[in-house]
Amino acid sequence: MTALNELIRIVGASHVLTGTQAEPYLNDWRGRYEGRALAVVRPGSTQEVADVVKWCAASKTPIVPQGGNTGLCGGATPDSSGTAIVLSLTRMNQVRSVDVDNDTMVVEAGCILQAAQTAARNADRLFPLSLAAEGSCTVGGNLGTNAGGTQVLRYGNTRELVLGLEVVTAQGDIWHGLRGLRKDNTGYDLRDLYIGSEGTLGIITAATLKLYPLPVAQCTALLGMASVSDAVAVLAAARKGFGASLTGFELIGGVCLHGVVQCYPQQRIPFEGDSAKLPWYTLLELSDSESAQHARERFEAIVSQTLDENLVIDAVIAESITQSKALWHLRESIPLAEKAFGKSIKNDVSIPVSRMAEFVEVTNAALQARMPGVQHVIFGHLGDGNLHYNVACGQACTEKELLARQDELYELVFDSVHRFGGSISAEHGVGQLKRDLLPRYKDPLELALMKRIKQALDPQGLMNPGKVLN
Amino acid sequence: MTALNELIRIVGASHVLTGTQAEPYLNDWRGRYEGRALAVVRPGSTQEVADVVKWCAASKTPIVPQGGNTGLCGGATPDSSGTAIVLSLTRMNQVRSVDVDNDTMVVEAGCILQAAQTAARNADRLFPLSLAAEGSCTVGGNLGTNAGGTQVLRYGNTRELVLGLEVVTAQGDIWHGLRGLRKDNTGYDLRDLYIGSEGTLGIITAATLKLYPLPVAQCTALLGMASVSDAVAVLAAARKGFGASLTGFELIGGVCLHGVVQCYPQQRIPFEGDSAKLPWYTLLELSDSESAQHARERFEAIVSQTLDENLVIDAVIAESITQSKALWHLRESIPLAEKAFGKSIKNDVSIPVSRMAEFVEVTNAALQARMPGVQHVIFGHLGDGNLHYNVACGQACTEKELLARQDELYELVFDSVHRFGGSISAEHGVGQLKRDLLPRYKDPLELALMKRIKQALDPQGLMNPGKVLN
Repeated sequence: MTALNELIRIVGASHVLTGTQAEPYLNDWRGRYEGRALAVVRPGSTQEVADVVKWCAASKTPIVPQGGNTGLCGGATPDSSGTAIVLSLTRMNQVRSVDVDNDTMVVEAGCILQAAQTAARNADRLFPLSLAAEGSCTVGGNLGTNAGGTQVLRYGNTRELVLGLEVVTAQGDIWHGLRGLRKDNTGYDLRDLYIGSEGTLGIITAATLKLYPLPVAQCTALLGMASVSDAVAVLAAARKGFGASLTGFELIGGVCLHGVVQCYPQQRIPFEGDSAKLPWYTLLELSDSESAQHARERFEAIVSQTLDENLVIDAVIAESITQSKALWHLRESIPLAEKAFGKSIKNDVSIPVSRMAEFVEVTNAALQARMPGVQHVIFGHLGDGNLHYNVACGQACTEKELLARQDELYELVFDSVHRFGGSISAEHGVGQLKRDLLPRYKDPLELALMKRIKQALDPQGLMNPGKVLN
Repeated sequence: MTALNELIRIVGASHVLTGTQAEPYLNDWRGRYEGRALAVVRPGSTQEVADVVKWCAASKTPIVPQGGNTGLCGGATPDSSGTAIVLSLTRMNQVRSVDVDNDTMVVEAGCILQAAQTAARNADRLFPLSLAAEGSCTVGGNLGTNAGGTQVLRYGNTRELVLGLEVVTAQGDIWHGLRGLRKDNTGYDLRDLYIGSEGTLGIITAATLKLYPLPVAQCTALLGMASVSDAVAVLAAARKGFGASLTGFELIGGVCLHGVVQCYPQQRIPFEGDSAKLPWYTLLELSDSESAQHARERFEAIVSQTLDENLVIDAVIAESITQSKALWHLRESIPLAEKAFGKSIKNDVSIPVSRMAEFVEVTNAALQARMPGVQHVIFGHLGDGNLHYNVACGQACTEKELLARQDELYELVFDSVHRFGGSISAEHGVGQLKRDLLPRYKDPLELALMKRIKQALDPQGLMNPGKVLN
């Protein structure tokens, strides 16, 4: 077949996959989406990416860029037509350079996030992007979706960690934008346009990333409290007391912790009696540039202040790195504790922090009115206003009944998010999953502007068609 | 005249200025550019801005948006044709709201930067954008040019301080994008496209800005050293030791300090003997969330470490807020010390920090070879890689001769900046001043992509024509 021969000519026969070899690239890992493709093409260099795209542009072949294929919204899965190629960037996995004095490194799109973190650490620096999939997701995927994670409160989303990009445009030209500059006001911000565009405007092949000093010590605490509004007040106190040293502030519903220890009995909630049965907990992380002792002293000051103010009911400050890890492990186990709650309807929403308490109260009540007995499995990055506001069966129904009403419950939750000035996708992106919801929740003018940008940069509509925009 | 009547109908007769009333809006404050306009129009609301723009779009009248008119590149001055209107946003000067729990505030484009800072401080919060013109520049101008300033090292450029925008498009539609969310991954990043576009894509009428906790204490020190590379090494030590508490790191050529005390004899260099004659100094600021004593102890630790390592030759740590202010005043007086150096050719460039020492050495040598005896007046935000690399007559020539060779010296400096991977406009933007230099230093593909964006959002080319792009 001519098409395959052309692709083989560019990247070599062993990097054009079809049949069973291609299969792992054609489904998303959660098993929600399944597609077909002409072939999976795995270029080994930016020039090869450009050559593949040029061929696609000439032959009007759609392109679905793919990194570690760990996305949650089907953004890297082709449609069922079989006309597109999947362009896998996993062979472009090098850390090209680390510039210690400039606090930057240049990383290729296919580099596993954890490998990028390690390269930074080996240079005595921190690359702060950190999320559950870091062992298998790629930097290119993080860039394409503007990934969030657990350190956004201090370091920002992926967008804020990038200084420069190398991009192959929809025409197959290479934009050499790998600048390592913290200030550059010489024109439009193309960088941030490509970041978060989910491969629909071009293909990011490499990026110049910001590095930070490694913290000297980290300290973690779990605080129990009566309400979300108390948690918001503790956040304000922690931001004031810790400044930029506050690197994590997670909200955890008490229900979530109990679900974790039910599923994983080797884990434990570090409280006894009534303190183990509080409705809400917050997990705080402080990163200190002085010493472990200094970090602990600062924590004790804030904890005793918020205890005195009756914002916090009980508190545990980790005594060791092992205990810190155990607290984080509790938090990270929540999404895995499905056995306790059954399958749930998962939401990744953001709300202004100031409206969070009211949002939870109002939305919980609306859900109970609609499906009495339904269970709220709520946790997330309170410091960023980002909640994983999940809904499980509880006493309300069976898993099957719940999932059958998914669209209805999405609408209930998202309508509430929208009324509170929030976003229906805080950190996971749009992909296929939320594409058709955008017109309900986004300003029509904003969608029209997006379409004009799409038309300007990808007039043939070949870049990841059907994702983000319809 | 019909046009004026139409504009008067929208904003009222007292807000359509012509003749001598219009004059202050038709020149830039440095007196480099002078233009003409059909009228200066001062709308009082977003809707009035939209109505004016709709009228302009229908009548094909170019629009030059203007804030405090403090720009350095002629971006807010109309051309000499007299066909454009100047759209002054200074009447839209309200802080619409402060959301303390969300750490955000909504500010209109015409609000003076200092008024925005004050509104934040009144709510016990910091709005960190800070620059020399803050008493007269507007937030809209800061947004349009992505202004930098003295706190970029810690808080980023204006871009990084913005969560949401309200924009009137080139068609006169209003984009209601005033979101107060730290995470929102539901489409293309229009926000960052408008920021830094210098009014060439649309008109920003309001923004949701990020707030931070006020520091409890600040401490300042002036360190003297032998070379730029020693200054870079001190920067690395300070970043490691202070983490995010390092909020300022300025490089100052010794020549600059002597020029300041020559012009302003009431100021003094806080060193004696040889320490007052060092080639380089750095001004460091530490913002502490604990106490003044704690800040001072941390400073002493870093200063004694860098003295031991022979990176620093002598150091003064401010003993009081008054002394801190005196040190900053020395730094801020440098651009005003023209009497000492005569008129100079001013450059606002950025270079990767790791290449800064070599850049200064090589470029100084090239300038001396071209014009022996010329004086280097170098200072800037080393922590951001941003230098004001200015060139004064010294023994080389008269002011007149120097200015006559401005284009030649720009080219010499910018060619060197380009070779070192730098930017010819770090924080001042492009405007008219550097528009025609972009094709020499920017990737042609990047310029082509910018033009496609411009065409997509402003197909009639009415938004601030002749700025940024030709």
